[in-house]
This record gives sequence, C-alpha cells and structure tokens, in this order.
Amino acid sequence: MSKLLVIGTVAFDAIETPFGKTDKILGGAGTYIGLSASNFKNVDTGLVSIVGNDFPQEYFDLLHSKNINTEGIEVVKDGKTFFWGGKYHDNMNKRDTLITELNVLEHFNPVVPEKYKDAEIVMLGNLHPLVQNAALEQMNKKPKMVVLDTMNFWMDIALDDLKTLLKKVDVITINDEEAQQLSGEYSLVKAAAIIHEMGPEYVIIKKGEHGALLFHKDKMFFAPALPLADVFDPTGAGDTFAGGFTGYLAQEGELSFDNIKNAVIWGSNLASFTVEKFGVERIAGVTYAEVDERLSKFKELTKFSL
Amino acid sequence: MSKLLVIGTVAFDAIETPFGKTDKILGGAGTYIGLSASNFKNVDTGLVSIVGNDFPQEYFDLLHSKNINTEGIEVVKDGKTFFWGGKYHDNMNKRDTLITELNVLEHFNPVVPEKYKDAEIVMLGNLHPLVQNAALEQMNKKPKMVVLDTMNFWMDIALDDLKTLLKKVDVITINDEEAQQLSGEYSLVKAAAIIHEMGPEYVIIKKGEHGALLFHKDKMFFAPALPLADVFDPTGAGDTFAGGFTGYLAQEGELSFDNIKNAVIWGSNLASFTVEKFGVERIAGVTYAEVDERLSKFKELTKFSL
Repeated sequence: MSKLLVIGTVAFDAIETPFGKTDKILGGAGTYIGLSASNFKNVDTGLVSIVGNDFPQEYFDLLHSKNINTEGIEVVKDGKTFFWGGKYHDNMNKRDTLITELNVLEHFNPVVPEKYKDAEIVMLGNLHPLVQNAALEQMNKKPKMVVLDTMNFWMDIALDDLKTLLKKVDVITINDEEAQQLSGEYSLVKAAAIIHEMGPEYVIIKKGEHGALLFHKDKMFFAPALPLADVFDPTGAGDTFAGGFTGYLAQEGELSFDNIKNAVIWGSNLASFTVEKFGVERIAGVTYAEVDERLSKFKELTKFSL
Repeated sequence: MSKLLVIGTVAFDAIETPFGKTDKILGGAGTYIGLSASNFKNVDTGLVSIVGNDFPQEYFDLLHSKNINTEGIEVVKDGKTFFWGGKYHDNMNKRDTLITELNVLEHFNPVVPEKYKDAEIVMLGNLHPLVQNAALEQMNKKPKMVVLDTMNFWMDIALDDLKTLLKKVDVITINDEEAQQLSGEYSLVKAAAIIHEMGPEYVIIKKGEHGALLFHKDKMFFAPALPLADVFDPTGAGDTFAGGFTGYLAQEGELSFDNIKNAVIWGSNLASFTVEKFGVERIAGVTYAEVDERLSKFKELTKFSL
C-alpha cells in the first residue's frame, strides 16, 4: 500500500455550458484529484482540505465509498464551503468566472494527518503557494515525488512564493498559457527549459483538447487528448489528469521516465471521462472496464509502424 | 517508378515574421508540395502550374535539380507570376495577407502533360475547385488516390463547386477551422464524420503546432507536430505536409490504412523542417540523414509501454 497525500479544494461549483446549467454541485480540485486517483489499486489516498458546515454528509459518503481518507478535511462549524460559479463559451475553450466565494478557504491552514506525513507522493492542488508550502513543510519524510499544480492567478499575485516553492517540486503541471507566463517564452520547448531551471525535473504542459507535453531534461513525450464527439463540461479535467497521474505512480511505485510517460497517458485517459458529464458525475461513476477500453483507444490513437 | 501529379501554385511570396522579412522569394503550394515529395525514392513528380515571364530560370533549375518535371508549368510570355505577401503575428498562429496579385493565376487553365494522365496519385493543391476539377478531368485513368487541399476562401465563394469535386476525392486535408466551417460542427470528430459523407474516405485535419488528425470510417489516428524551440516562418507547412503525405504513398504504392498513417507522420516530419527557415530554403536543402533522424524523434515522441 502506497500513500498519496492530496492537498486541494473541496468546493461547491455552479456550472453553465451550452448544454445546460447546474445548481451548486460537488467540485474542487482536491475532489477531482481524489476521485481520479481512486481508480488505482493499493493506493491509500488522504485528502487535506477545508469545508463549512453546509457541506453535506452524502459528499463525504461518496469520498469514503472511494476509499478516500477525509481525516484531513477540516469542517468549520460556523463556516461556509468555498463556492465557484462559471460559464463556458460556445467552444468550451474559454470560461468566465461568474462568482467566487472563498468562505472558509480564506483562512485555510492545512493540517496533514499524522498517518500521511510519510506519504510517498504528495499532490499539491491549485492553491496559494504558501498554503501548498505549509502542507509540504509538515512531511516528516522527504516524499519520493512532489507534484504541483498552479495557475496564472498565483503568478500574478504571489510569484516569489511560487518560485520558492518550485525548488522543492519534482513535477509541475500547468497549461500552455501559464507555462508561457511563468517562463516569459512563447515556445513551449523553451518555456519548459526555463521552468526546469526553477526546480521541477519534470514539466507537464497541458493543452486541453490538444493533449499534454511532458518534458524531462532533453526528452519530450506527447500524450494526445482523445478526440471526443461531445465535450459536456471541461470543469475538473486538469485536476482529474493530476489525480490519474499521481494515482498511477503511487500504484506502480517506480518513478522511471517510462512510468512517468505512462502516468501522463493515464491522466489523459481519466480526464477524458470527466468532461463527458457535469461535475464529478462521470469520474465518480466510471468503471474499470470503461477505463481499460479507453486505454486501448489511446494506444491505437498514436501507434504507427514506421 | 510511381507517378505523382501535383496541381498547385508556383508563386512569389514576400513574408514578414517577428524574425525578419523577405523580398519576393520562391513560394506557392505546388512548389512546396513538389519539393517535399522529392524526398522520396522512385517517385516521378509532375507539377502543373502557371507563371509569368518574370519567373527566374534559377527557380526552374532548383525544381529540376529535385527531379520535378515542369513540363506542365505554363509560362505566360507577357504575364506576371502570382504574388502573395503576408505578415505573421507574434505567436505565428495568425497572419494577415498584405498583398495578393493574382496575375497569371487569374486565367489558369491547367494542362496535364500526356505523361502524367495516368498518374497513380493526384495531389490537388489549394486552388479554385473548378481549376482543381479541370485538371482531374484530364486523367485518362482513374488515379489510385486523389488528395485535395482547400481553404475557407473557396467555402465562402465556391461551396457548391467544392462539394461537387469532393465526391471524386479520396483524401481531404484541411485545417481545424476549415473543417468546422465545411461541416458546421465544432467537434472535429463530428466534423470529420460529416465531411466523410461528402465524399472523402480519409479526412485529415491539420492543427498546426498541435499536430494532425486522420479519420477513416470509425478509426482515428493522431500525429503530433514536433515541438520546436523556434518557428521561423510557417509559410508552406501545410503544403509540405501534403507533399510528404503523397510522396510517401507514391513511393510505397500500397494504400493501406497503416501506410496512410505512416504518410501522415512523414508529412508532419517534413513540415517540421519547412518552418525552420524562410520560404523553401529549409525544405529544399534538407538531407536524408536529417529527415531520418527526425523520424526517430517522431517515434520517440508518442511511444509508451502500457
């Protein structure tokens, strides 16, 4: 049994896409990461987060049913859960944030449960770099791998904190625009080289429907996204990717470049399910047979015989 | 020896990118297609086009040095060669056309030399669909494969002609926005299905730096673009792709799905050279050792062991 520690938001989302809209439903980076990682065997996932007393028991029940340990989720008695609302444009590539109520997230001091302080893999979901660092500092053993997700917002308001944290990070996952902002380079090849210098030995650049690039020293690997007839709701795709990536590596144990490539494929595989329905519905219900069948499609997609 | 008939413009281009600008240099879809296809063995390439008397002998000499037959290039004694000038924006993904002088192209009646009327493969470069059709009608034997490139401009002004021609076409290569326009569908999976219904058994959707998708019945194949540190000038990348695609298939002869996948990889491989320098400079000078080495990089890029 390998331990995966996940730091990330557990939240309410309200989502509008050309296909419909939802009331407040379960969301948050930590939620997607945990649910995605739960598809792997022999992985003990602990989730560190914060919610208010409005967070329903049924959502805890869902996380427990997937064997996600929620000891590290603080419940603030007189607080309200973080709430995000957004609307996607016609082509799903851009979204507007309509509402952000930080609520309990405003005073989030992550507390890593004793049991997870020696986790082999630490997944730092998108949060203020100081919050991510506060969690990492509590480890009593150097993790085999620290993976960080972040976003342009933190580059705007907390770049120095982010850069300090990056020195302790093995893998960074960001999207193409964020990689360009962080590095100041348009070319993703050059951007990755600069971000390597900031700390992470592995740089994963997510390009949404255009797939993901993995950079490691002078090596490159490209994982396509599976072309889909319908993308229903892109929310959580990047976090699902991170959960699949870390979950696979926790299961396998060996952190070779070959396994890290496989982990990128697994992240892409699981993310392709999340976008098929609103919120966590699809990733929370996906079966082993489904992910296995889709893995075959990923293999076929880029295989050639030259 | 297999025959490849190419219909396409031979032109002067003036190009401006963030890295510099050129005076009138050799350009045109037919030029790029021919130069790209010249990298394959046992392929007899005939180019059908039109130029003015301002077209220099040295450019003919270049084409001849690559064993491209130019019998089908009409030289209009009192005419001027087609001239295009354009400027690329910072990120190279968008360009503005600054000048278009059709000149001799305005009255282009393609004449296929007798020798190429039984060509196995016909590559119809981007031109008015009626011009493409006029060339195709001159074949005295049904080609094994007809490949068509087109653009949004013809969808705007000659959609019916394009749709009539598509019924005779085996492979269409267009970019993602054009596929969306032609089909009326945003999803490329749905777009390809609709374009299949219009005639082509194979639909290739080019996504520039994001690679190319090949659709055939219910099968999909994805060829990545090689991530490059520097893209100097994207002009002609799509035509180079088409030349590599058809040149490889003419060389191999067998038009199986596996070979067509390989042809997409070869098209991507050669296109990755064209963008490294202005105009045709790089593709006209590339060596076998270089393309062979880059093919290895393409193989490595998507190989994984799951």
